[in-house]
Amino acid sequence: MSSFTPTTRARLRRLSERGSYDRAAIFPILDAGLICHVGYLIDGQPYVTPTCYWRDGDRLYWHGSRASRMVRAVQDGAAVCLTVTHLDGVVFARSGFHSSINYRSVMAFGRAFPVDDPAAKLRALVAFSERIAPGRWPELRPTTKQELKATTVLEMEIEEASAKVRSGPPIDDEDEYDLDVWAGVLPLGMEASAPQAEAHVKPGIGIPAYLSRLRLG
Amino acid sequence: MSSFTPTTRARLRRLSERGSYDRAAIFPILDAGLICHVGYLIDGQPYVTPTCYWRDGDRLYWHGSRASRMVRAVQDGAAVCLTVTHLDGVVFARSGFHSSINYRSVMAFGRAFPVDDPAAKLRALVAFSERIAPGRWPELRPTTKQELKATTVLEMEIEEASAKVRSGPPIDDEDEYDLDVWAGVLPLGMEASAPQAEAHVKPGIGIPAYLSRLRLG
Repeated sequence: MSSFTPTTRARLRRLSERGSYDRAAIFPILDAGLICHVGYLIDGQPYVTPTCYWRDGDRLYWHGSRASRMVRAVQDGAAVCLTVTHLDGVVFARSGFHSSINYRSVMAFGRAFPVDDPAAKLRALVAFSERIAPGRWPELRPTTKQELKATTVLEMEIEEASAKVRSGPPIDDEDEYDLDVWAGVLPLGMEASAPQAEAHVKPGIGIPAYLSRLRLG
Repeated sequence: MSSFTPTTRARLRRLSERGSYDRAAIFPILDAGLICHVGYLIDGQPYVTPTCYWRDGDRLYWHGSRASRMVRAVQDGAAVCLTVTHLDGVVFARSGFHSSINYRSVMAFGRAFPVDDPAAKLRALVAFSERIAPGRWPELRPTTKQELKATTVLEMEIEEASAKVRSGPPIDDEDEYDLDVWAGVLPLGMEASAPQAEAHVKPGIGIPAYLSRLRLG
């Protein structure tokens, strides 16, 4: 896959050896997340709103109530920064200075517009459902026109994006590896635990297989 | 504890029954996170940068290289939105429309300034270390003057903040609880796995107890 071409907006300044503009680096990080943080402006004030998102090719999608402040602020093509971060561990070096975090993150820049066509909007929501629980959508009762109308689906073509990753053990100053202190990584990650059925689920309706297929982190 | 007083900036518009301006709701959410997303502006373009943070009273702290774009953009008192989000689960309702996410999030607004006094800066970095690994700091070799100089610690007094939380099972339309589909919650959370010692750790230096005391989510 090819690279996004960074302007000064997406170009990495610090620790650029940890960064990439390649789709091959960026897409897996985007596809492993459920929650992104959308940055936007209202009257010169920055806001950062967490929301679910999904990807199709070079396009990112998220949704919200038509009345949502975030939706209203971004839906007319305002500049948006959408950031996805996976925390992979705490890196304990032999000094505070070299201690760090293992992570994978993507900053994506673009402008968001609503998906207006009802059929396209529904297809986008099906894609979101499939991303979370592949195969569940046909089990659900159909979405009503009112529900579709109350929901805004936002689409943002990625104009430019960068990935930044730190992984592996701590890197200490050369003469400090023999200090008498533990050093290493405490791995962290999102984990699912046992599904909790809602109280009215009928006997005989077991836990669906798709719950174990959710891609996390 | 008292509440922050929201202006139009922090006031919740949608699903405000999920929200709070109380320190008693906001502080535990802030104290459970390692990574926040800082929103700021450069030339009218919003940016969202993930970074570690910590809290002391009404003040939030984060740090970065003196050369970091984020540090340079916010350190002179620019308007900042700092958001912390914990993903607690996926909520599977009997319709797409009522499906949701369980989460706890805080949006905090303020302006960031560098902690200039070297002693205060060092105290802040010790507090950060203590938040991650209580008791580790005295084990580390002292921070050098050069390291302290290369690091910018940012301090932001929370001017206003809101918490938003969704928890519990799906809420379906009243006549849909008897549909033949599984409904419920898939709980999600950050988990630590077995610490990985760096290759040069001396025999006899065991895994420190503070690694198991890290508060997550």
